[in-house]
Amino acid sequence: MKIALIQMQAGFDKTETIRRACALIRQQVSVCAEIAVLPEMFCCPYATKYFRSYGEVQGGEAQAALSALAAELGIYLVAGSLPELEGDRVYNTSFVYDPTGKQIARHRKMHLFDIDVKDGQKFCESEVLSAGNQVTVFSTPWGKIGLCICFDIRFSELFRLMALQGAELVIVPAAFNMTTGPAHWQLHFRARALDNQLFTVGVSPAREENGCYVAYGHSIVADPWGNVLYQAGSAETAHTLEIDFAQVQAIRQQLPILSARRNDVYECRLKSE
Amino acid sequence: MKIALIQMQAGFDKTETIRRACALIRQQVSVCAEIAVLPEMFCCPYATKYFRSYGEVQGGEAQAALSALAAELGIYLVAGSLPELEGDRVYNTSFVYDPTGKQIARHRKMHLFDIDVKDGQKFCESEVLSAGNQVTVFSTPWGKIGLCICFDIRFSELFRLMALQGAELVIVPAAFNMTTGPAHWQLHFRARALDNQLFTVGVSPAREENGCYVAYGHSIVADPWGNVLYQAGSAETAHTLEIDFAQVQAIRQQLPILSARRNDVYECRLKSE
Repeated sequence: MKIALIQMQAGFDKTETIRRACALIRQQVSVCAEIAVLPEMFCCPYATKYFRSYGEVQGGEAQAALSALAAELGIYLVAGSLPELEGDRVYNTSFVYDPTGKQIARHRKMHLFDIDVKDGQKFCESEVLSAGNQVTVFSTPWGKIGLCICFDIRFSELFRLMALQGAELVIVPAAFNMTTGPAHWQLHFRARALDNQLFTVGVSPAREENGCYVAYGHSIVADPWGNVLYQAGSAETAHTLEIDFAQVQAIRQQLPILSARRNDVYECRLKSE
Repeated sequence: MKIALIQMQAGFDKTETIRRACALIRQQVSVCAEIAVLPEMFCCPYATKYFRSYGEVQGGEAQAALSALAAELGIYLVAGSLPELEGDRVYNTSFVYDPTGKQIARHRKMHLFDIDVKDGQKFCESEVLSAGNQVTVFSTPWGKIGLCICFDIRFSELFRLMALQGAELVIVPAAFNMTTGPAHWQLHFRARALDNQLFTVGVSPAREENGCYVAYGHSIVADPWGNVLYQAGSAETAHTLEIDFAQVQAIRQQLPILSARRNDVYECRLKSE
């Protein structure tokens, strides 16, 4: 499976940003990408005050454009995330389209990012956003793929549940900042991959030094052994690489972690089960 | 709290190895160590064929010596691990003594190390060992301390359960090898520390290039932000450093991970609860 990581900036003109996203995806499909991933809040400046005005309801502008693009190009498309409006609520939502343009998954960010690091980053998403409450895994011809958004990666339970639901790769549109990025970005992607013996893919906005939120960039792919297969810098970068799903089973066989869990002693489960 | 990491080799003479362990601990207490930690299988060559012959029942030779030493020096002592005999069974067990010499905790390795890496390490503990089934957390004047052994660190559930039981530091006597050590040792200790916002301490046997099992060494301390505070090389090394438990609450307040878990959606729990 050839996957394209589209590390791009979001401008203040939403229509123009969507157009640029589509152009970058087309460019990667021309080098054989079969699935493309956009960053978190790919068409909205990353500040809580913009979420409502840049938001859209089910089937809105960005969704319509990306669904049509997926169908035209015959690819899977993980539409980063955008502010999704439903009634009074705003969710940070990732939509997934299959090669016919059909929406086959939707993940609403489950853990909201409220942080207050001493002398560092402050951010309070829960002032504006509502949280999702679903674990998201979808099927593709290559294998099952899990999906979550940014702060969600910090929670080992969510990754374990995706792995137990069959995910062999987890995609994470994410916008770490200049405090948490250097400290934790690569560590989390490598560790979740190793712990669950699957691939992880993180796609960040490109860094905009004078933007309202300075993203770390460094879009990344880690393999089931915890190695970094690819990592971008901070500039706008679209890159396609091959992922070999067969490695997942090979490594799970050599080093039995998932199967050696002590299901008789503990369990990690959905409360609704 | 000043903690001593005793990275030492185990010889074939058990009595002599215990004597050397005691000497290294005394040396670190002379530089103010208040708690000392020995490696996994600290007084037994690390091969399954030796586990039974080097093993001992409750109160055996190594336990008696270390309990007496803890009382004499007035320190906490985490006696790495040793083969514990009970009836027909052999466990890989860590005993903990308080400054009066009283045994206040006992962890039996819960996840046995059966591995078969292609062109790499092969090892099958479960041929000889039985597995424990208890999560181990004990109290000290500085805070609660969790305890597990080597392969146990690969299981995120166990660390989450120790954190939920109040652990602010987790001690892991461990013997990674030359395949898994370079690939995963530091990654696991940093990631478990970050995920659970606590300190992790790993104490390995020193490397013995011609031994029956070549340990990676690199005894380590990671802090709740995921930084490496200390890491040894591969040679025999005893080292004492200060751990500031106040950092745990400070970081949990700035970056709320444990408290931001979605307890309404998922749970990680002991089955016996």
